[in-house]
Amino acid sequence: MYFSKLVESICPYVAGEQPQDKKYIKINTNENPYPPSKEVEKIIKSYDYSSLRLYPDPDSNVLADSLSKIYNVGKENIFLGNGSDEVLAMCFPAFFDPNDLPVAFADITYSFYKVWANMYKINTHVIPLNDNFEIEANDYINLGNKVKGIIITNPNAPTGIILDKQDLISIIKANKDKVVIVDEAYVDFANYSMAEYIKEFDNLLVVRTFSKSYSLAGIRCGFALGNAKLISALNTIKNSINSYTVNRLTQAVAKAAIEDRDYFESNINKIVQTREWTITKLKELGFYVLPSSSNFVFAKHIECKGKDLYLNLKKNGVLVRHFDLDRIRDYLRITIGTQEEMEKLIETLIEIM
Amino acid sequence: MYFSKLVESICPYVAGEQPQDKKYIKINTNENPYPPSKEVEKIIKSYDYSSLRLYPDPDSNVLADSLSKIYNVGKENIFLGNGSDEVLAMCFPAFFDPNDLPVAFADITYSFYKVWANMYKINTHVIPLNDNFEIEANDYINLGNKVKGIIITNPNAPTGIILDKQDLISIIKANKDKVVIVDEAYVDFANYSMAEYIKEFDNLLVVRTFSKSYSLAGIRCGFALGNAKLISALNTIKNSINSYTVNRLTQAVAKAAIEDRDYFESNINKIVQTREWTITKLKELGFYVLPSSSNFVFAKHIECKGKDLYLNLKKNGVLVRHFDLDRIRDYLRITIGTQEEMEKLIETLIEIM
Repeated sequence: MYFSKLVESICPYVAGEQPQDKKYIKINTNENPYPPSKEVEKIIKSYDYSSLRLYPDPDSNVLADSLSKIYNVGKENIFLGNGSDEVLAMCFPAFFDPNDLPVAFADITYSFYKVWANMYKINTHVIPLNDNFEIEANDYINLGNKVKGIIITNPNAPTGIILDKQDLISIIKANKDKVVIVDEAYVDFANYSMAEYIKEFDNLLVVRTFSKSYSLAGIRCGFALGNAKLISALNTIKNSINSYTVNRLTQAVAKAAIEDRDYFESNINKIVQTREWTITKLKELGFYVLPSSSNFVFAKHIECKGKDLYLNLKKNGVLVRHFDLDRIRDYLRITIGTQEEMEKLIETLIEIM
Repeated sequence: MYFSKLVESICPYVAGEQPQDKKYIKINTNENPYPPSKEVEKIIKSYDYSSLRLYPDPDSNVLADSLSKIYNVGKENIFLGNGSDEVLAMCFPAFFDPNDLPVAFADITYSFYKVWANMYKINTHVIPLNDNFEIEANDYINLGNKVKGIIITNPNAPTGIILDKQDLISIIKANKDKVVIVDEAYVDFANYSMAEYIKEFDNLLVVRTFSKSYSLAGIRCGFALGNAKLISALNTIKNSINSYTVNRLTQAVAKAAIEDRDYFESNINKIVQTREWTITKLKELGFYVLPSSSNFVFAKHIECKGKDLYLNLKKNGVLVRHFDLDRIRDYLRITIGTQEEMEKLIETLIEIM
């Protein structure tokens, strides 16, 4: 009797397992296998703990300055949040109305979108990926007045597939009257980003995270880049929920990480190399592997069932992610760990198959 | 055209000024003037930065264990969030429905309540404080079926006044069919808390923060204590917005702070002593001061206007908070700083008056 009708009706997101016993090769939640930049260690060790008695800067100005330089945009084009999940969650009430025109997204994509839509009572227009698990650009180009906006994860998750750049630009151009949110959580492992296009397209919002490419899933920091009016709408929502979403240590740590470009690039290169090695090996073992532009691969075996493989791998100390959902239940989503971890994965697969 | 109707209609919360130039005696946002526990410094200096590559425990189990021991409640009675503002923000969709029965709160209280109500389209039933700026218990005892729930800040803000304990218990008992949220942001500076009563009253939710009494406004950590069903509703909302709201460093820092009970108590004692000294001095200067059970005082001068005093103090390097609102525009809300800071406040007041 104490609860809202909403609580009784929504179905929360289920995150990947986070075992606390530490005995797994944990390649199930797309974390980076390498530590953050050494600059992160320095900033933490030298942090003036007494300053924690004060509220953080609600606008994260010092961190926004760094981002502003790196992306060559104004601070009015940047919105920071407690992880990109929080940024994306705030997009729903900022850009879409309850029980009104829907937001469009793919049937197979980040599964939090439909949870946020339910949370905010926003209708959805779900567009199936084609048989190759690709986004069909024409499906998004010909939406007309059917939807209020679009969210595209690019590269997509859990497929890892990136959309052709010109196709994505065509989608943004064909929907100038709608917001197009491009969730670039994995884009640093790919070969292009839409970040620079926010100046050209007023309807484009690019969402990023420090969790994957900066090895900072534990610090919770994400951001959006977009036209000042889109950013202002996000700030209106944020300041109607929580003024101080990004804490002092997070602001300092994220700044240190993003400014160490050399470490960032070498970290990415290592993961991309290991990804290509892993794909080759998986194919040798009889896996069908989707082309990945991310720090994970999505693969199914021609003979073994996805759930069996997942359970057998877990039993043998290797944790991957399996989604028991139509169209993808034969697949495993495997995060790219260190080279050693992926060698262990391949060995374990050979043993159990 | 990109925005929701909500964005056009809501009026965000305005936090106290956070000047970045550091030249003020900053007694405007109820921050603690003393640093956090030395244990916080230790935990930060010795923190394994490489673990930041991993997501935090979404349920903050290790921190919840500490809270569980200190408050003698089960972990199922604890909900953690990114500051108590986030916890309170999640209470609105968890316990109240849009365009339905209202939530009741005082006309003069934490001003974020009406912002959250607007954000989630929840009706409000605003109950005026009496002429002494006190909550009239009978107003809340006789609500009948008019409201879905109640929020009481206790001690209240910005008045600092605490409700008689038996009156608060009577309110909770008279509303067993409704959730009663007691926002105890300042309770560590008072002489009683409702935390222990969550076992007795299924409808009681107590909300707490690390920002004030633990000197950790910069780390963003708050929590709720309540019946497992209330906590479960909050978890449903949280997991429909953001699975990982409390980051790794915050979990570690909050745990270190709350376990150092000696420092916590000596810190509180110093502030309470300085508060009593400040009240005496303000009265000598012709101020009317409300009785405070918090780390701030709410005071008006018998002759000088609130806004003039605020502006003159600011000009002289002392930042206090002034609310330009009916009933309270003659008042200043003055955070209790160090003894030296309060002496400077009194000196400055003598100079400018």
